Amino acid sequence: MKKYVYFFGNGKAEGKGDMKDLLGGKGAGLAEMTNLGIPVPPGFTITTEACIEYYKNNKQYPEGMWEQALEALKRLEEAVGKKFGDPSNPLLVSVRSGARVSMPGMMDTILNLGLNDETVKGLAEISNNERFAYDSYRRFIQMFCDVVLGIEHNKFERVLDKVKENNGAKFDTDLGAEDLKEVVELYKELVEEELGRSFPQDTMEQLRLAINAVFESWNNQRAITYRKINKIPDDWGTAVNIVAMVFGNMGNDSGTGVAFTRNPSTGEKEFFGEFLINAQGEDVVAGIRTPEPIAKLKEHMPEVFKQLEEVYKKLEKHYKDMQDIEFTVEKGKLYLLQTRSGKRTARAAVKIAYDMYKEGLIDKKTAVLRVQPEQVDQLLHPMIDPNEKYEVLAKGLPASPGAAVGKVVFTAEDAEQWAERGEDVILVRNETSPEDIGGMNAAKGILTVTGGMTSHAAVVARGMGKTCVAGCGTIRIDEENKQFEVDGKIVKEGDFITINGSTGEVILGKVKLIMPELSGEFAEILKWADEFRKLGVRTNADTPKDSEIARGFGAEGIGLCRTEHMFFEGNRIDAVREMILSDTKEDRRKALEKIKPYQKEDFIGIFKAMDGLPVTIRLLDPPLHEFLPHTDEDIEKISKASGISTEALKKKVEELKEFNPMLGHRGCRLGLTYPEVYEMQVYAIMEAACECKKEGIDVKPEIMIPLVGHYKELAILKEMVDNVAKEVMEQYGVEVEYLVGTMIELPRAALTADEIAQYAEFFSFGTNDLTQTTLGLSRDDSGKFLPYYVEKGIYKEDPFVSIDQSGVGQLVEMGVKKGRNTRPDLKTGICGEHGGDPESIYFCHKIGLNYVSCSPYRVPVARLAAAHAALTEE
Amino acid sequence: MKKYVYFFGNGKAEGKGDMKDLLGGKGAGLAEMTNLGIPVPPGFTITTEACIEYYKNNKQYPEGMWEQALEALKRLEEAVGKKFGDPSNPLLVSVRSGARVSMPGMMDTILNLGLNDETVKGLAEISNNERFAYDSYRRFIQMFCDVVLGIEHNKFERVLDKVKENNGAKFDTDLGAEDLKEVVELYKELVEEELGRSFPQDTMEQLRLAINAVFESWNNQRAITYRKINKIPDDWGTAVNIVAMVFGNMGNDSGTGVAFTRNPSTGEKEFFGEFLINAQGEDVVAGIRTPEPIAKLKEHMPEVFKQLEEVYKKLEKHYKDMQDIEFTVEKGKLYLLQTRSGKRTARAAVKIAYDMYKEGLIDKKTAVLRVQPEQVDQLLHPMIDPNEKYEVLAKGLPASPGAAVGKVVFTAEDAEQWAERGEDVILVRNETSPEDIGGMNAAKGILTVTGGMTSHAAVVARGMGKTCVAGCGTIRIDEENKQFEVDGKIVKEGDFITINGSTGEVILGKVKLIMPELSGEFAEILKWADEFRKLGVRTNADTPKDSEIARGFGAEGIGLCRTEHMFFEGNRIDAVREMILSDTKEDRRKALEKIKPYQKEDFIGIFKAMDGLPVTIRLLDPPLHEFLPHTDEDIEKISKASGISTEALKKKVEELKEFNPMLGHRGCRLGLTYPEVYEMQVYAIMEAACECKKEGIDVKPEIMIPLVGHYKELAILKEMVDNVAKEVMEQYGVEVEYLVGTMIELPRAALTADEIAQYAEFFSFGTNDLTQTTLGLSRDDSGKFLPYYVEKGIYKEDPFVSIDQSGVGQLVEMGVKKGRNTRPDLKTGICGEHGGDPESIYFCHKIGLNYVSCSPYRVPVARLAAAHAALTEE
Repeated sequence: MKKYVYFFGNGKAEGKGDMKDLLGGKGAGLAEMTNLGIPVPPGFTITTEACIEYYKNNKQYPEGMWEQALEALKRLEEAVGKKFGDPSNPLLVSVRSGARVSMPGMMDTILNLGLNDETVKGLAEISNNERFAYDSYRRFIQMFCDVVLGIEHNKFERVLDKVKENNGAKFDTDLGAEDLKEVVELYKELVEEELGRSFPQDTMEQLRLAINAVFESWNNQRAITYRKINKIPDDWGTAVNIVAMVFGNMGNDSGTGVAFTRNPSTGEKEFFGEFLINAQGEDVVAGIRTPEPIAKLKEHMPEVFKQLEEVYKKLEKHYKDMQDIEFTVEKGKLYLLQTRSGKRTARAAVKIAYDMYKEGLIDKKTAVLRVQPEQVDQLLHPMIDPNEKYEVLAKGLPASPGAAVGKVVFTAEDAEQWAERGEDVILVRNETSPEDIGGMNAAKGILTVTGGMTSHAAVVARGMGKTCVAGCGTIRIDEENKQFEVDGKIVKEGDFITINGSTGEVILGKVKLIMPELSGEFAEILKWADEFRKLGVRTNADTPKDSEIARGFGAEGIGLCRTEHMFFEGNRIDAVREMILSDTKEDRRKALEKIKPYQKEDFIGIFKAMDGLPVTIRLLDPPLHEFLPHTDEDIEKISKASGISTEALKKKVEELKEFNPMLGHRGCRLGLTYPEVYEMQVYAIMEAACECKKEGIDVKPEIMIPLVGHYKELAILKEMVDNVAKEVMEQYGVEVEYLVGTMIELPRAALTADEIAQYAEFFSFGTNDLTQTTLGLSRDDSGKFLPYYVEKGIYKEDPFVSIDQSGVGQLVEMGVKKGRNTRPDLKTGICGEHGGDPESIYFCHKIGLNYVSCSPYRVPVARLAAAHAALTEE
Repeated sequence: MKKYVYFFGNGKAEGKGDMKDLLGGKGAGLAEMTNLGIPVPPGFTITTEACIEYYKNNKQYPEGMWEQALEALKRLEEAVGKKFGDPSNPLLVSVRSGARVSMPGMMDTILNLGLNDETVKGLAEISNNERFAYDSYRRFIQMFCDVVLGIEHNKFERVLDKVKENNGAKFDTDLGAEDLKEVVELYKELVEEELGRSFPQDTMEQLRLAINAVFESWNNQRAITYRKINKIPDDWGTAVNIVAMVFGNMGNDSGTGVAFTRNPSTGEKEFFGEFLINAQGEDVVAGIRTPEPIAKLKEHMPEVFKQLEEVYKKLEKHYKDMQDIEFTVEKGKLYLLQTRSGKRTARAAVKIAYDMYKEGLIDKKTAVLRVQPEQVDQLLHPMIDPNEKYEVLAKGLPASPGAAVGKVVFTAEDAEQWAERGEDVILVRNETSPEDIGGMNAAKGILTVTGGMTSHAAVVARGMGKTCVAGCGTIRIDEENKQFEVDGKIVKEGDFITINGSTGEVILGKVKLIMPELSGEFAEILKWADEFRKLGVRTNADTPKDSEIARGFGAEGIGLCRTEHMFFEGNRIDAVREMILSDTKEDRRKALEKIKPYQKEDFIGIFKAMDGLPVTIRLLDPPLHEFLPHTDEDIEKISKASGISTEALKKKVEELKEFNPMLGHRGCRLGLTYPEVYEMQVYAIMEAACECKKEGIDVKPEIMIPLVGHYKELAILKEMVDNVAKEVMEQYGVEVEYLVGTMIELPRAALTADEIAQYAEFFSFGTNDLTQTTLGLSRDDSGKFLPYYVEKGIYKEDPFVSIDQSGVGQLVEMGVKKGRNTRPDLKTGICGEHGGDPESIYFCHKIGLNYVSCSPYRVPVARLAAAHAALTEE
């Protein structure tokens, strides 16, 4: 018989801490803590395997599971000295989900299970607190009905509000035992009304239904969404933890709290957390009452605090990582309910990893692996420019760092919709709930009215790397009129605000943001990462300024310098248009002569910024019509500005129009049919290189021919480049080492890479276009159906964000292999936007590319991801 | 020392008939004929290797070649009993090109070489014919200057015309010896003027320059063009044949002719050809004088005719193929100058192959291989509808069969330009010359004023499978006014004419053409082909009518039935537009219900036509905007017709607009996002199939999902198809065997064919789209640069015409292998336009596809090509 149930209690557990896959994070943590001698309420865990089997078996328990659970329940009764369903001495349990990785608030939890009309009396008697017993019972009914029976939470709230109103009570705590008994009766009536049957009094039935509900909650919509965002496989399943209840709400010698062994926001080495006296755990997490900082617990319960300090130190030392713990104090006795690796901001991740290495707790590799590449992007998030002067509208808790500017919206749906049409939004809510997850992801930042540093909004925002200001209590939201009010000031939907998640400030209007630089511990961690990584990291930069920024972030060269961007700047575009409108080669040459000095100047700037590092310059890529106006209005405007007749413009626009510009007359096809264009560019590059070289700058130009599909295209153009280069170098009397290579961005190029490598000294995989052609997917048009594809799981991720490994990746791998077969020292890199995506970087490492190239601000992410790839490969 | 020169003469040759690669077709034929005891003037052949070496060595002869040639020249002098350059008894030679395969008129020939101011006197003396000697000399100067020294032919003609005018002579033959002496002097002055040096008198220099010129002519523009059109490799080179001159122009007991051992136009078993009394060979080929039919030779020279009959029978029996021979009679003595396999029309090829098999001359395989797949397309060329009544404007020779309708143009350049912009043209010329080759290829048909059945126009047109009427002497071309006149009627450039190459008729205006059916010997040959081929041949057909035609041509099923074409017919388009304009699924369904009966009706018709054969039906493929109007004018029109407001139409058009429709929202992407569309289609297919089945028709529907890139797309849609099929079959109470498969038309599909084959029962390679995506080449836009690519040899052929084997072909091969790995019995076929291209069919055979599918009229071509593929594979 397979073992589906693992018991823990009395200082001994059947499970262990390394059984997370089977017991879930929570279950493994409880087992481990029990074995460590840490005070944990006894209980048992039903394995994730049982959950998987449950789904496979058409939602039936696997054979033996229920019997094992009953057996464990018996042991639990013995450990606690209470009996489940016994009116005289009832055992109450919590039933909680627990997957391999934490999915905070995504799945269901039921507390106080085991209460019914009889056991509630027993609880009242034992606790000598009738009010507590009936409060627990009414909470249990409400929660059970919400989670298990599907009756809306609000309906119970309305009943409760009515009783409060009738009794002139302001808070729940103002209600007495008799009032709560009335609430319980009204709740039970509500159940009858809603379901046509009464609330289940059989505690075994309660247990069974609750286990089912937890299993089912693995596949509720918000859990699915969370998994998608966090890339958690759908087939892991959840474990179920059934644990003896302990009560933080048994008076002022009771309480509950959550804490982190280090500050999860800053990473400072300090015990950090919050607690509430006389409350149950969900009160803290849900953010309904604002809790007190953990340090205050020392005043309330010095003994407990001391014990807690010992426990947390033990736990951190044991797990060698910052822990996120939940605890409850029942009548002065401390219970640890959970421990897990704590979620943290990127800043905290960096500081903690750095500190723990310095403390000797972990080695350098571990320190590097502790900082997630996806996450460090946060550190490169906008900050408010320190030179900016602004007035603070309100102040909340600094729940997730960074700053964000956006238009105010009040619902998650609006956030998603507005963001979809390209608006930056700040989602403003009283508090967020798991249903808001999509909107939070879409927003630039989140602002909540209630809830603390560990509220849902704060935890989720930090995980997402979103700026969040939480618990900003001075704000009053008027949902109906879609506005909020602070001190008499009205902020309407669509108004701009700026929030600073590092300080908690809320500012009316747009404030200028700046990008931070790399420094301190983060720079140090990245240096360590550099020690481990094998992939080079270059940047995509088209200007001297971007090149400098990227170099500051550690870029080891330019992987893609797009020359066409230079064509648009200032009044160069006039000469470009003149060139396009020319009918003869002669006229085109004349126009090109006007553009050349600009191009040369750009290249000189870039070469200087990249002194000593390689610079890959791609020759003109887009179709010529991209440089022409398209609407009648624009044509009119440009005609006036340039003196070119509207007829001539229109004629040319019509002539150059393409059905599928993506597959049209561009890249090397232009270079072959209008050789004078590429020639001008190569002259500009080589002249710039020679001039720099003469000034003592170490230039390493790599000239890249785009859109090659057939080796003969490259053969012809390489000859041209070599001829021009020779001529220019002779003219300047200097030798410049340069390479000629190509973008591999068409399937045919990858398929015939062996032939192309005869003429190419390097390959740069242009995975943006390669994705478009391999998948037959226009990036500009796919918005109409690609979201559906990702939603349905046809593609796990948007293939323009993370490389489609089995399709596009297969071609890249093939290209590398075939290319190196012909030319073993072929340099290979990737310069699509995938170059900054950690998953894609792992793939690039795996297939042995020489480097990735990404936008300047993604360079640190890429450095770290490349190190992770090297450190985690098998 | 390598042997570069092969001698033949005195009934013995160093070379043999199977040495075509080395000696060229002409050289090998001369050697073979010599060995067979056929009267051939002695001579020697410089090998193709020497030509190749010449190009490799920077246009220097390979070592020893010249010495070997001098040695052979000596033997030739001995054989003939004359001496090269000897004024008293001069040997004259012809210097001719001769490649592995015949390239008629493409390369250069020089006759009468060895004449100079001294030897001409000797020739006059020996021949006792001063006029002949000086005529030969002036011809030699003219030809040598044109071919070797690069002085334009016309300049000499002008001199000649002037002398004729001065002497009141109408024809060349009216000039006497003294006149010709004057001509020679004037020619020599012209050379002095043009080149600043005198005409070379040294006969060895003449020989050397002539050999060079022949070598060089391998790479003249028209030879290159001819090789491109005929797919002859550029690196074969040409041999040079130096043969003792014999003279057909030594009086009325002399003559020259060309003949075929069977009729090259009809294939009839009859000696067929033409001759001219007192003329040299070029007079026949160039079409300047209209020659007499060969039968007349019997009257003129009965002995010679008898000898010629013996020779041609011997040759055909020896070569087991119809021969094209050139002969000259010098003072009553017959010389064979050349024999080679004769070019023939498709009709003749079929008849000759069939007859020779029946005669026991060749076996069935050889008979099948004798008919070229590229060529039989001719047999399926349009014919004039026999029911048409028309008036014949003029009548010429039926030089190349078939009929053609087009606008009159008078130059090859115009033919090319007009054809490029999509016009059908008939090229009308006095006579064609090798320079016209491009224009002839571009024209639908060719009409010439002079020249016989073996004139340049006739030979080339037959080779190209173009309709040609030659020697239509009643026509007078007025080049200046771009018109021609027949019996007082004026036909201007751009006017439509119809020509019938099978009857020689020229008709004013457009006459209705029809396609012929398969029958007789052709049907027989195709049946033989079917015995050998391994590839199946299906057709692309969208209507019952096309299906019937294709079946008549031997199609073994439908490989591609495009359902969208059905959407456009009649007033269905209204319902289609209604569907597209619907905003809800409900409204879309309503509109689709209107379309369904039409679709069903179509399918019933097709299933009936294809009773017993498989029918692959592709579900809707194009993006929806293809069904909407695009210009304001069309929108207006459709708005009026349909009652849909212009605003609604414009809004939808705007909404559906795509940047790259080729890579857009189409194919299965539509099927997934608008499932009701595909559902309707599957209902229509399955209902039609069930109804047919009930009527006793053997239906084999194969439902094809287009544009699949990821196996999950197919998985979802296959489930839908299976569900609908099950429902419909239950409803009708019949079982229909059907397959579900997919088009492989995206690189990703080929790359992941192993995954896709899990859900696909067949693959149909859509190589049109696969070419577009693999090469990143929009078919609609590539016209701007693809001709340049083909011209420069980047792609050997337009990749949309003949499959790009190393790129697209690689993916197809990969797709087949991976697909069969998963599903060994996977059916694979190709349904792009490559399915009718012989080269592509060979490739499909090689990689083991099950079938090709092509347009109905290409089915016979495909059947034959498939047989060739099977018969010629190694």
